[in-house]
Amino acid sequence: MYNFTFHVPTTIHFGKGQISHLTELADYGSRALLCYGGGSIKRNGIYDQALSILKDAGVQVFELSGVEPNPRIQTVRRGVELCHQNDIQMVLAIGGGSTIDCAKVVAAGAKYDGDAWDLVIKPELIKDALPIFSVLTLSATGSEMDAFAVISDMTKNEKWGTAGECLKPTMSVLDPTYTFSVPARQTAAGTADMMSHTFENYFSMDDGAYVQKRMAEALLKTMIHYGPIALAHPDDYDARANLMWAASHAINGMVGDGCSPAWCVHPMEHELSAFYDITHGEGLAILTPAWMEHVLSADTVALFAAYGRNVWGLTGTEDEAVAREAIVRTREFFTQTMHMPATLREVGITDEKNFEVMAKKAADGCKGSFVPLSKDDIVEIYRAAL
Amino acid sequence: MYNFTFHVPTTIHFGKGQISHLTELADYGSRALLCYGGGSIKRNGIYDQALSILKDAGVQVFELSGVEPNPRIQTVRRGVELCHQNDIQMVLAIGGGSTIDCAKVVAAGAKYDGDAWDLVIKPELIKDALPIFSVLTLSATGSEMDAFAVISDMTKNEKWGTAGECLKPTMSVLDPTYTFSVPARQTAAGTADMMSHTFENYFSMDDGAYVQKRMAEALLKTMIHYGPIALAHPDDYDARANLMWAASHAINGMVGDGCSPAWCVHPMEHELSAFYDITHGEGLAILTPAWMEHVLSADTVALFAAYGRNVWGLTGTEDEAVAREAIVRTREFFTQTMHMPATLREVGITDEKNFEVMAKKAADGCKGSFVPLSKDDIVEIYRAAL
Repeated sequence: MYNFTFHVPTTIHFGKGQISHLTELADYGSRALLCYGGGSIKRNGIYDQALSILKDAGVQVFELSGVEPNPRIQTVRRGVELCHQNDIQMVLAIGGGSTIDCAKVVAAGAKYDGDAWDLVIKPELIKDALPIFSVLTLSATGSEMDAFAVISDMTKNEKWGTAGECLKPTMSVLDPTYTFSVPARQTAAGTADMMSHTFENYFSMDDGAYVQKRMAEALLKTMIHYGPIALAHPDDYDARANLMWAASHAINGMVGDGCSPAWCVHPMEHELSAFYDITHGEGLAILTPAWMEHVLSADTVALFAAYGRNVWGLTGTEDEAVAREAIVRTREFFTQTMHMPATLREVGITDEKNFEVMAKKAADGCKGSFVPLSKDDIVEIYRAAL
Repeated sequence: MYNFTFHVPTTIHFGKGQISHLTELADYGSRALLCYGGGSIKRNGIYDQALSILKDAGVQVFELSGVEPNPRIQTVRRGVELCHQNDIQMVLAIGGGSTIDCAKVVAAGAKYDGDAWDLVIKPELIKDALPIFSVLTLSATGSEMDAFAVISDMTKNEKWGTAGECLKPTMSVLDPTYTFSVPARQTAAGTADMMSHTFENYFSMDDGAYVQKRMAEALLKTMIHYGPIALAHPDDYDARANLMWAASHAINGMVGDGCSPAWCVHPMEHELSAFYDITHGEGLAILTPAWMEHVLSADTVALFAAYGRNVWGLTGTEDEAVAREAIVRTREFFTQTMHMPATLREVGITDEKNFEVMAKKAADGCKGSFVPLSKDDIVEIYRAAL
């Protein structure tokens, strides 16, 4: 097990009606920037509920609306400007991971004397941020309890992750009932995203991180158990609750700290989204089985076999057969059980023309991963997924 | 899944050499009270190392030494007095859970205008505490990352747990090499303690807390895997590291929040320690299988069977047989694999004379547990364990 520092300062208020805790924002000032996406929080009443609570608490609300599914730096800049114009003291995101990611970089941008894009490409410049709060409405990214944010500049086909201790939310409200109205396609994509976070942490070569691997398996079992239930019964409370809590744990350090994982499927997918603006979770679901097949080898077979036995309950005694079956199960889960696209063609990526340049950009992030990937490896994985 | 608030503010610096982070205490003032037990931290060099780091950081150290394995209120009072006399600004525990528990109540007592015993029997009186830091030298109680403390008054045969948000340590150093020198008997007792914490959270009837149950199984598998390795090879880094980190997670809220568990084996054991001053982990190892047999019924068999299949890898299809075998395995693990006492007689409790009065005191804490226990139930369990 590698050395690590574990630090999860976010207070999580989990369960029905926990939005009442928004009154606590008054402890941080009287002027908040509310970030949200489209109109879904207005349709389902969360917007009105939050505004009423904040008004009663004496917190004046300014709004940054229209945050995109792959949030744009242009929107972040607009948020930073609102912060400066209105002497904003804290940022509240109501939405999914994209909205929270946007709010995080707005909060850091408000404390940075320069263009917010600097903070996306140079995380070390993030020194301070306004206090960040969130009300989660989609189980997927884990942004509600972690230090990360992913921002895109589509004018340049750039999508990068950044991070900073001060980007960890102060408090997040996780009410599973707020995800009852998430459509099937987003439920599936969210489940694929949280599974990918767990995989990225799980598939690391240091087998001394035993407890982290067992906890990652616990999360994967939960996601595989409840993903289909949430699809079939969108208002099943326990399904939504378990997916929500598992997603937060997948990326808050619990399964990653001590393993020193370097992620690789995410960097590969970020290029797909940067060039084609596809749904992140769908890109991950397409790439993951192709990546697994590419990296399966004598060196990695034992871990894939452990994955097959401990997560899928496979009982074979031969590692290679169990490993291959585990990859088949993974692909079938995404495509057949969760009804997700199986190939890049199905999400509109029909030719190879950008593969070389995308692979070149992704390769930097994949150097230190479980199995280090070169540009050529990544092109091969993209082709296999086409 | 029940509503809950998850809040783990403690920064954990985990791994070799992390004691260097004690320099961070200087951010909290210049006068610290150091709490420790016997001389082991002097023999193994941790004491000198810590004092040297603190001196260089400009932190003056006052000492509360001789903290007992079941820490006494008299020692806590001595610590509070030292805080008042020396204008202490923070408390640093170096030791196992007993030392950290003592330090916690000293830290709260220093901010309380009355006798510290009040804080033990009335947790709601704990409103504030000096900042608490710890360097862990024994994997067992999880006190390094939780809100709890257990203090005894042996003059009255009283041993009670207390808790408070402000008792959560600000920062804890978890260096697995510091546990290399823990003797076999304490290693076994510590493993039984962390397993019991996990059991107390795991055996709750709300089966909607699926992810918590799977994570609890992950912790139990880790403890069962590495406990014997740590006994056989006291300086096996990965064994000590995995036990240490699993113990912290067993009680920091990760597996308990959302399950609403009410513990019962701990209250029963606290009476054993209060009346006979036995080793806490040994008491738990003796009581746990007896308790499991007592509460196994048609209502609980499914969860015991899940425990058998998911933790012990049992493959039977009949729940009752799997459940019974799981209890047998649990007892054998403690007695045969970990070489712990199997009966109360073996730890010097040779008659029933105190069972009625002990059971009466413990019954209050067992009312809301997985299977509520009456005074008579508890007497029966004590007898079965005799």
